[in-house]
Amino acid sequence: MVQLVLHYDGARFAGWQRQTKERTAQGELERALARLLQSPTTALGAGRTDAGVHARGQAAGVRVPERWTVVELRRALNAVLPGDLWVAAAHEMRPEFHARYSATARRYSYAVGLGEASRSPFRRAWEWAFPRPIDFTALDAETAILQGEHCFRAFAVHGTAPPTDSLRCAVHRAGWRREGDVLFFDVAANRFLHHMVRFLVGTLLDVASGRRPGGTVARLLLAADNSEVSPPAPPHALCLEHVNYPDDLYLSGSA
Amino acid sequence: MVQLVLHYDGARFAGWQRQTKERTAQGELERALARLLQSPTTALGAGRTDAGVHARGQAAGVRVPERWTVVELRRALNAVLPGDLWVAAAHEMRPEFHARYSATARRYSYAVGLGEASRSPFRRAWEWAFPRPIDFTALDAETAILQGEHCFRAFAVHGTAPPTDSLRCAVHRAGWRREGDVLFFDVAANRFLHHMVRFLVGTLLDVASGRRPGGTVARLLLAADNSEVSPPAPPHALCLEHVNYPDDLYLSGSA
Repeated sequence: MVQLVLHYDGARFAGWQRQTKERTAQGELERALARLLQSPTTALGAGRTDAGVHARGQAAGVRVPERWTVVELRRALNAVLPGDLWVAAAHEMRPEFHARYSATARRYSYAVGLGEASRSPFRRAWEWAFPRPIDFTALDAETAILQGEHCFRAFAVHGTAPPTDSLRCAVHRAGWRREGDVLFFDVAANRFLHHMVRFLVGTLLDVASGRRPGGTVARLLLAADNSEVSPPAPPHALCLEHVNYPDDLYLSGSA
Repeated sequence: MVQLVLHYDGARFAGWQRQTKERTAQGELERALARLLQSPTTALGAGRTDAGVHARGQAAGVRVPERWTVVELRRALNAVLPGDLWVAAAHEMRPEFHARYSATARRYSYAVGLGEASRSPFRRAWEWAFPRPIDFTALDAETAILQGEHCFRAFAVHGTAPPTDSLRCAVHRAGWRREGDVLFFDVAANRFLHHMVRFLVGTLLDVASGRRPGGTVARLLLAADNSEVSPPAPPHALCLEHVNYPDDLYLSGSA
């Protein structure tokens, strides 16, 4: 098994997951693999990203004939993939590696532009130009409660409601850091629900900009009901940064 | 007179200068101005950038009816301009301000990606992923000679040869700086000839990567003949960073 670590610019993808009619990152990757390996090949992703969401660390598992080294595979893929999808690394993995089930953590970042310059053509594709003043102390206070294991039913879209325990996520880290006039939300968890990071950012910033009272996140977590969540923050400022796997799943080959 | 300071992503522009059939930055700006001011309006740029070249500091002079403040003009323009063109600032200028002739210096940057990661979708639009090893000492030595006033005939494309003195440029500063695995060429001069920065980068990197002998730039400057210049570096990694005007041309209003 090979783990591909992928970068993609989400702007022109209808998300990660293969679809029959839309251009997706998985679809483009599988097309390139089929062309190189001359046989239909599945690239299973660690997680599904929404349309417009970027990745600097999506992981995909691919079964590749033994005659391909990871060095050759990576080089050959990057020669045929479109410019908005790129293999940053390729690792040889043990046969039991499964891109989704073996993952122990995912980490996302969300970029919030604080000044007008976030509307520049060089930044608007990656940042949400936030229009209201932010109380950073309130933001940090509201965010602190996320740490730990909770039912995130309030921060997800669901079809028919699945059982409660499948909505539990263990948040390893959630916090904000500022670089110049950009505010980054970094969040790592064992798993994420559909739209979860975008709902969290939308609600946290509503509190931090005075639209909703402090304690809203705690109340929503307890209510476990998504009817009062804030609108999700836009997808173009969200990036899947990294997927963690246990060290013992890695074999020696890397490229 | 108003000076507009412009950012643009050059990817989808056939350069700065208005053309009848191609999409250009000047063309889009003048279209937005005509719409707002309800009359045809010329936006004269400090310099022409080639197709694909970016700007974070192109300057354009515009004559605007007195009832418009620079604050209102900037806001209104940014509301109607396409996403790849943005007014970063607007300054009230004395009537004798002329975007091209009043400029005392232009500054460009050129971004050279040293590692494979420069091919990532997040970097490939702004960096030239340079494929050969670079000798930084040789690069600095070859660059040092550029400082001062020279005839840059060897580093420009010309139609019918203009008189020699119009090809003289005073280079105020030329040097390389490294940030992680990106190498930036910063060059400031009173004026630049057509393709000049790209020819300089192409030739300097040919020397620094061992393709041409040290001293090539000096020899070409003396020969004043462009038949032996290296191919120009690609446009997408070049950015017009700043245009300087004398302080006394600025009035108090800025936005």
